[in-house]
Amino acid sequence: MASVPTEQWAQIFEKSGGPIEYKKIPVQKPGPDEVLVNVKYTGVCHTDLHALNGDWPLDRKLPLVGGHEGAGIVVAVGELVNDVKLDDRVGIKWLNGSCLHCEFCQTADEPLCADAQLSGYTVDGTFQQYAIAKAAHVARLPKDTDLAAVAPVLCAGITVYKGIKESGIKPGQWVVIIGAGGGLGSLACQYAKAMGLRTIAIDSGEEKKKMCNELGAETFIDFATSKDLVADVQKATPDGRGPHAVILLAVNEKPFQQAAEYIRPRGTIILIGLPAGAFVKAPVFSSVVRMIRIQGSYVGNRQDGAEAIEFFSRGLIKAPYKVVGLSELQSVFDKMKKGEIAGRYVLDTSK
Amino acid sequence: MASVPTEQWAQIFEKSGGPIEYKKIPVQKPGPDEVLVNVKYTGVCHTDLHALNGDWPLDRKLPLVGGHEGAGIVVAVGELVNDVKLDDRVGIKWLNGSCLHCEFCQTADEPLCADAQLSGYTVDGTFQQYAIAKAAHVARLPKDTDLAAVAPVLCAGITVYKGIKESGIKPGQWVVIIGAGGGLGSLACQYAKAMGLRTIAIDSGEEKKKMCNELGAETFIDFATSKDLVADVQKATPDGRGPHAVILLAVNEKPFQQAAEYIRPRGTIILIGLPAGAFVKAPVFSSVVRMIRIQGSYVGNRQDGAEAIEFFSRGLIKAPYKVVGLSELQSVFDKMKKGEIAGRYVLDTSK
Amino acid sequence: MASVPTEQWAQIFEKSGGPIEYKKIPVQKPGPDEVLVNVKYTGVCHTDLHALNGDWPLDRKLPLVGGHEGAGIVVAVGELVNDVKLDDRVGIKWLNGSCLHCEFCQTADEPLCADAQLSGYTVDGTFQQYAIAKAAHVARLPKDTDLAAVAPVLCAGITVYKGIKESGIKPGQWVVIIGAGGGLGSLACQYAKAMGLRTIAIDSGEEKKKMCNELGAETFIDFATSKDLVADVQKATPDGRGPHAVILLAVNEKPFQQAAEYIRPRGTIILIGLPAGAFVKAPVFSSVVRMIRIQGSYVGNRQDGAEAIEFFSRGLIKAPYKVVGLSELQSVFDKMKKGEIAGRYVLDTSK
Amino acid sequence: MASVPTEQWAQIFEKSGGPIEYKKIPVQKPGPDEVLVNVKYTGVCHTDLHALNGDWPLDRKLPLVGGHEGAGIVVAVGELVNDVKLDDRVGIKWLNGSCLHCEFCQTADEPLCADAQLSGYTVDGTFQQYAIAKAAHVARLPKDTDLAAVAPVLCAGITVYKGIKESGIKPGQWVVIIGAGGGLGSLACQYAKAMGLRTIAIDSGEEKKKMCNELGAETFIDFATSKDLVADVQKATPDGRGPHAVILLAVNEKPFQQAAEYIRPRGTIILIGLPAGAFVKAPVFSSVVRMIRIQGSYVGNRQDGAEAIEFFSRGLIKAPYKVVGLSELQSVFDKMKKGEIAGRYVLDTSK
Repeated sequence: MASVPTEQWAQIFEKSGGPIEYKKIPVQKPGPDEVLVNVKYTGVCHTDLHALNGDWPLDRKLPLVGGHEGAGIVVAVGELVNDVKLDDRVGIKWLNGSCLHCEFCQTADEPLCADAQLSGYTVDGTFQQYAIAKAAHVARLPKDTDLAAVAPVLCAGITVYKGIKESGIKPGQWVVIIGAGGGLGSLACQYAKAMGLRTIAIDSGEEKKKMCNELGAETFIDFATSKDLVADVQKATPDGRGPHAVILLAVNEKPFQQAAEYIRPRGTIILIGLPAGAFVKAPVFSSVVRMIRIQGSYVGNRQDGAEAIEFFSRGLIKAPYKVVGLSELQSVFDKMKKGEIAGRYVLDTSK
Repeated sequence: MASVPTEQWAQIFEKSGGPIEYKKIPVQKPGPDEVLVNVKYTGVCHTDLHALNGDWPLDRKLPLVGGHEGAGIVVAVGELVNDVKLDDRVGIKWLNGSCLHCEFCQTADEPLCADAQLSGYTVDGTFQQYAIAKAAHVARLPKDTDLAAVAPVLCAGITVYKGIKESGIKPGQWVVIIGAGGGLGSLACQYAKAMGLRTIAIDSGEEKKKMCNELGAETFIDFATSKDLVADVQKATPDGRGPHAVILLAVNEKPFQQAAEYIRPRGTIILIGLPAGAFVKAPVFSSVVRMIRIQGSYVGNRQDGAEAIEFFSRGLIKAPYKVVGLSELQSVFDKMKKGEIAGRYVLDTSK
Repeated sequence: MASVPTEQWAQIFEKSGGPIEYKKIPVQKPGPDEVLVNVKYTGVCHTDLHALNGDWPLDRKLPLVGGHEGAGIVVAVGELVNDVKLDDRVGIKWLNGSCLHCEFCQTADEPLCADAQLSGYTVDGTFQQYAIAKAAHVARLPKDTDLAAVAPVLCAGITVYKGIKESGIKPGQWVVIIGAGGGLGSLACQYAKAMGLRTIAIDSGEEKKKMCNELGAETFIDFATSKDLVADVQKATPDGRGPHAVILLAVNEKPFQQAAEYIRPRGTIILIGLPAGAFVKAPVFSSVVRMIRIQGSYVGNRQDGAEAIEFFSRGLIKAPYKVVGLSELQSVFDKMKKGEIAGRYVLDTSK
Repeated sequence: MASVPTEQWAQIFEKSGGPIEYKKIPVQKPGPDEVLVNVKYTGVCHTDLHALNGDWPLDRKLPLVGGHEGAGIVVAVGELVNDVKLDDRVGIKWLNGSCLHCEFCQTADEPLCADAQLSGYTVDGTFQQYAIAKAAHVARLPKDTDLAAVAPVLCAGITVYKGIKESGIKPGQWVVIIGAGGGLGSLACQYAKAMGLRTIAIDSGEEKKKMCNELGAETFIDFATSKDLVADVQKATPDGRGPHAVILLAVNEKPFQQAAEYIRPRGTIILIGLPAGAFVKAPVFSSVVRMIRIQGSYVGNRQDGAEAIEFFSRGLIKAPYKVVGLSELQSVFDKMKKGEIAGRYVLDTSK
C-alpha cells in the first residue's frame, strides 16, 4: 500500500455562493468505524451546486468540500472495521453515515435517519483526493470496476433506480421519464430497460431524442414541439390510458400538473428533482377519483445501492460522461448553470 | 311479496342548483342483470349536494334523482340474476354498476372503470322509494340488519374504511383524522379503532371532542384553539415523529400543507374530501427528503364494501345519525350548506 | 362471416383412461353471456392427459372434449355480449368462466372461484373445431396474432408468468427454473428474461442446455450429471447465497427438498406442476430459521393473461412448438407419457 | 449506580443433555459496542430446552449459560455506545447481535444474518445475573416497565407478533392459533385481538378454553374432543370458507396437514414451532389449485421487537406467568418436558 500523504488537493468553499478554491488541505484520519478513501474519480451533481448556493432549507458544514459521487480505493480503516479491507474498491455516496439503530435505520430507510451524515453537505465530500466515510455505508465495488464510469452511478444511478423501485411499477408496464436526456434521465432510461419496463422519454431536441432511443426508450416526446403533450403521452400507450408511473427528474409546476393529467388511474408520480422553493400542485378531484399517488423519493438505501451497482457491473448501465480534472470544477458548475450538460461530468482527482 | 306499485315518491331536480321537487314518478323495471330495490332508508352525503350544484367536472344525468346510500329490500330481479334473491336485504352504493371486464374491473378496481354507473349521478339514485342497481354491485346485508343504521355506512363508512386501507397503515400505528367530528370522521374514528390503530382526531369544539373520544380517538386537537397545530400533532405521538398516516376528510390548502409538515417520514396522506376546484400543494423539498406519499382514495370496491359492512354488523361501527322523512331533503341540504350537521342525516322514504 | 356448421370434428372420450375418439359431434350454441369460437389451433398440455386419466381429486364432465389452449375466431356471440365482436381473435383458457361476484372473483382471484368452469374438464374444451366460452373470460388477441404460435401461451405461458409474479421476485434477482427444458420451462425462461430476472435453468441433456441458454438462462445445471446440485446452484449466484425464487415445474419430492436447501433465506418456492398424488415436504427447522416461503400457484387471472399475451405480442416469447393435426392427439399423448416432448405440440383443428 | 460485582449466580451446563449447574461464575466486561445488563427476570422458553438437549442442527457454545428472554438494567456500556445509557431498562433477546451490514441486516432481516449471535446459544444468555449484549440489539423498555411481566414478551411475544405480521392477515380477517393455550399461544391470542383480528383458538381442555376466551378468542375448538376438526374450523368462519391464516405454534404432521385442508384459498400457514426433526408435508394438488402459502417465521427483527413491546406497554398484552427463583430452572424444565406448563415461567435472578 502506498503511504497516505498528509496534504492533498481539494475544492473547498467558505460561504454560500462561493467562491470555490482549488487548494491543498490536510488529509484526515478515519475514526474507529470509518475508512479513508483515496478518491480517484468523482461525479458532479446538481446537488453540489445547490450545496454551494445554499438553496435548501437544511444546514450544512462550512467551510465545505463538496461532492458525493466518489469512487476510489480504501487506504486506511478504523480499528473496528472488519468487513472493508485496505485496497478494496469502494464508493462514497450522499449518505456518508447514519445511526444504524433508529426506527428508520432499523427498517432499511437509513436515508431518513435524523442523524444521517451527508457527503459534501454535513461532512466533507469527494471533491478532494482523500475522503472519510462510515464503513457500514460505503458502496462495495467489484475489483475490476471502472472507477470513472461508476462515479455517476453512485448518486444519480442509485437515485433513479430507487425512484423507479418506489413507484411500484412492474415489468411490462409503461413509465414516463421527464428530463430523460439529462444526467439522471439517461441513467433512468437504462435502468427502466434493464427492469423490463417500457419507456416514454420526454425531453427536447434531436440529440437527446437519439440518445434516449439508443438507451432503450420506445417513444420520445419533445415537450418543446408537442402541440398537446397530454394527448401525445396517452397515445403512446397501446390502450390510450396513459403510463403506470412517471419519474419526474426536473420538477416544476407545468410538467407536474401535466403528469397528473395523463397518468393512468392508480398510477404513481415519483418526485426526485429538487428545484429551490418548488411546490407540487394537483387538482384534488381527479387525484381522488383516479386514485393517483404522488410520492417523493430520496436517495437509495444501502441495498438499493448494491442492486444499482450490480446492474452497472453487468454492463447494462453505461452513463455517458466526460472526464475533466478536479481543478476544473468551477467551469463544470458554470456549464451546469447554463443547462449545457448532456450526461454527466466526472472529475479526475489527480488533475 | 308485496306487489310493486307503478308510482312512487321521489326527490328529483331538472337543472344545476335545483330546485328539488318532492313528487310522484314512475317505478322502473330492472334489466336482465339488475335488481329493483325498495329503498327503506337513504343517507344524505355531501356528494349529493355537489351533484345538485354541478360542482364537479364530470357529466351527470338530468333530470336526476340523487342519493347513493340506500338500504332496502329486493322486490324484483332480472332474468340472469342468480345470486341475489327476492326479499334479500341489500345496499345501493355510489358505484351502481361497472363493466366487469376492463383492466380496472379485472383487478378489483371497479371504481376506476371508465363505464361505471354512479347512483344519483349518472343513473337515478336512492332519493326515491324504488331504485334500480346492477346485481353484481349491490351490497349484501345480513337478514337482521338495521336498514336505517347501515345507510351511512354504505357510502361514508366504506369510503373512509377504504381510505384507511389505502394508506397502508398497520395495527399499532398512528393516524390523524382531519374532520374527525363530521359524518365521515365519526365513522373513520371507529374503523380506525376496530383496525387496531391509534387515532389523533382533529376538529373543533367541545361537542366534537367528546364524540371523538367516545368513538376511540386517543387525542383530540382543536384546530381552532391550537397555537401550533404541527407541534401539537407531533407531540401527540410518543416519539414525537408524527403520525404514520393522515386521512383528509375536509381538504383545503391549509390542513393539507400542515399535514405535509407534521407527518412522519415515509407517511401517507390520503385525500378523500372533494371540495369544488381545490388543489393539493406540497413543498417538493420536504416531500422528497422525507419520502412522503400523497394519494387520492375514491370509493371502495365490492370487497371493501363487504368488509366495511362486516365491521358494522359486528357492532363495532355506530354511525351517529338522525332520521327525517324523504320529503325533508331540502332542509337537510340547507343545514349541510351551513355546516350545521354533526354525524349523518338518514331519510325514511315512507315519509 | 362464414356460416357456422351444425357438425364438426372433435376428440372426445367417455370414461377415465379413454379411449379418445376422433369423430363428428354437433356444434353448440352460445348462451346470452357466451361466445362461440372457431378454434383454429389448440395446444396440448400435461393437464389434458391428467383429465383423460382422471388423476386428480376433482370431478369432471363425461363424456368430455378436452383441451384448454385454444386460439380462434369468434363466430357467434350471445345477446348480452357487447365487448367481444364477431371476427375477433380470442383465446380459450383453462378458466372458461367464473361467477364474477364471489369473494375471489371480486378480488381478481377468479381462478379460485368455487363455481368456475374449466375448459376441457368441467365443460367441453378446445379439442374440437367450435368451442363455447364465457365472453368475460376469453383472452383478447390482437388482429395479427399468429394463432398457432399463441396457443401454448394461453395456458403454459400464462401459468408460468403467473408463477413468476406470485414469487414476488424483482428485476435483477435470481430464479431457478426446474424443468427448464420442457414445455412450460422453455416459456418460463423467456418470461424470466423479459422481466429482468437472472435465470438458472435445471434440466438434463445437451439439447435442453442449448435451448435454455438460447432462451436467456445464464446458467444451466444438468441434474443428471451434477455431483452436488445444491452446491452447484448456490455457486451459480455471485454471493453464493442461492436464488431468490424457485419455480418448480416438475414437482417430485427430491427436487423440492433440494430447493428448500439451496434457496436463499426469505426465498420463495413456487409449486406449479401437478403430479398425481404428490406431496411437498420440507424440514421445519430450516424453513423457520431461514424464513422460506412455499406457495402453490394455479393459472393466471384475466389480467395475468392479458399481460402474458402482451409479452408474447411484443415478440419476446417464442414458444418452441410443432404442429400436427387434431386427429393425431392420441400419438401426442403417447409421446407425452414417454417424456419425449421438448417444447409443445399444437393441433391444427382442420386436419 | 451500584457497583458491578466480579462474581454472580448462573445456571450453566457443559454438555448436551446437562446436567445444569447453579453456581457462581465471573461477570464479563462489555466490548466497545456492547452493554452489560443486570438481568432481573428471565423467561424460560422451549428453545432453552432444545439448546440444553442439542436438538437442532446448529452449533452452540459449550459450556453454556442459556436463556434469551431477559429484562434488566444497564450497568455498564462500551466506549462506542451512545444511545443506551446506564440505568436504562432493556431486554435481551434471542438475537444478541448481528453484523449490521450484510444483505439481510441491510434489509431489516437481521435474524437471517449469517453472523448473528444468539443469546443462550452461541453466546451466554440470561440465566445469570449479569449478561452481555450488543447495544444495537437490546430492546429499549420504558422506565416504568414491569421487568418480570415483560420477560416472556421478549421472545415469545415478539415471535408470535412477528408470525402474525408475516402472515399478511388484515384487520377483520380470521386467524387460527394452534396451541393457543400454551405460552406462545396465550400471547398470540392477545396480539391477534390487539391487531383487529378474529381468532379461532385450537387447544385442549376446559382450563385452556376459559383462558383463550378471556384473552380474546371468539371460538375455541378442542382438538381432543372434536369429531371433525377440519369441518369445525370452517364452520367457525361465517362464510364457511375457513380462516385467512393459521399460526402453527406446535408443529407436528397432523395439525399441519389439517391446516392445509381447512385454510381458505390464498390463505397462509405460518410455521413457528421447532420440534426436533419435524417435517411439513402438504398435498401438491390442493396447495396449487387453492394457492396456499406455507411460510416459516423466525424471531422478529428490531422493529418488530419495538412494536411488540409497545403493545405490551399499552396494557394490551398480559402474559400469564409464574415467578420462581433462577435456582429452580431444572424443575421448570422438568415440567416443560411433561407438557405441564400453562402460560410461562419467569425466573427471578436474585433467588
